Amino acid sequence: MKLLEDRIVKDGKIFPGNVLKVDSFLNHQVDVELLNEVGKEFYRLFKDSGVNKIFTIEASGIGIACIVAQYFNVPVVFAKKSLGKNIAADVYSTQVKSYTHGKVYDVIVSQEFLSKDDKILIIDDFLAMGCALNGLIDLIQAAGAEICGAGIVIEKAFQDGGKLIRQKGIRVESLARVESMTDDGKITFC
Amino acid sequence: MKLLEDRIVKDGKIFPGNVLKVDSFLNHQVDVELLNEVGKEFYRLFKDSGVNKIFTIEASGIGIACIVAQYFNVPVVFAKKSLGKNIAADVYSTQVKSYTHGKVYDVIVSQEFLSKDDKILIIDDFLAMGCALNGLIDLIQAAGAEICGAGIVIEKAFQDGGKLIRQKGIRVESLARVESMTDDGKITFC
Repeated sequence: MKLLEDRIVKDGKIFPGNVLKVDSFLNHQVDVELLNEVGKEFYRLFKDSGVNKIFTIEASGIGIACIVAQYFNVPVVFAKKSLGKNIAADVYSTQVKSYTHGKVYDVIVSQEFLSKDDKILIIDDFLAMGCALNGLIDLIQAAGAEICGAGIVIEKAFQDGGKLIRQKGIRVESLARVESMTDDGKITFC
Repeated sequence: MKLLEDRIVKDGKIFPGNVLKVDSFLNHQVDVELLNEVGKEFYRLFKDSGVNKIFTIEASGIGIACIVAQYFNVPVVFAKKSLGKNIAADVYSTQVKSYTHGKVYDVIVSQEFLSKDDKILIIDDFLAMGCALNGLIDLIQAAGAEICGAGIVIEKAFQDGGKLIRQKGIRVESLARVESMTDDGKITFC
């Protein structure tokens, strides 16, 4: 998606360790007009998949998912990072490793909001190692729901997450696929 | 807002300790169509206030803020709950007590995204004791920005947060103001 790639080049910031910060328009400050273009594009890609629910993970996925959901006329469910020590009985849970924060989280979703009749489109801001996405897939599979695919805003295609998840037979559509980044700020897209 | 009050009566669940769960439509599963009505109403209330940015706090405020922002054609900034021990130098920070989780969080926002030229509308899902809202006000005041007001989806008017914040001279508009709740499920609105 040219508009998004141009924006990443213009406003993205690269930090050592392959960190790409896009917090001026995607995950701290949010350009809602851009998200609407993202929503239209995901709708174009997945409109024939029978999506009845959009699923994401807090926090930065939520805003994107809500804007995207408008094009599908479906509700959003967001998985929560559990802060407590006890996992309630009426949830599906899994664990997700965050490389950014160097922690493992319990991630939960109420059983009430995912069922075997659901056809789910996963939405998230980033795909790198695939940890968050794999966690969401675990939760959907625990509920017996169908996965229509995953819509990702930015994929770091030089990391393995996207490849591994596509190998499972899951459709992954990333609107910007970063092939490489250099510490002096040059970004190449696939 | 009648539509919202009706939905709270229909789908809200009351738990001991004045807990009102609305996670089937507001803060776990999200009814985006309802949020659009919420967005229209906040726009009607604040459209003449010169709002140029919407400010909220992760996680459940983000989706609401993004939908609302579409009516104002402005970006969203969301404050982050800091998980690390160190607060970066280029952020404004404050502390917020969560009664739900029994914890005190550091809450931060990058200095880059709030400035003295900003006219801010705060958006959040709940107002009870006012801890989160006071935290957001602290951050805005640290940046020297102007507060146009706060748009709250559900206010527990039997708790003191709303009163105390209005006493500071801040305009607070809550779309549903709960006067009382009983453990057997009866909700009365102001």
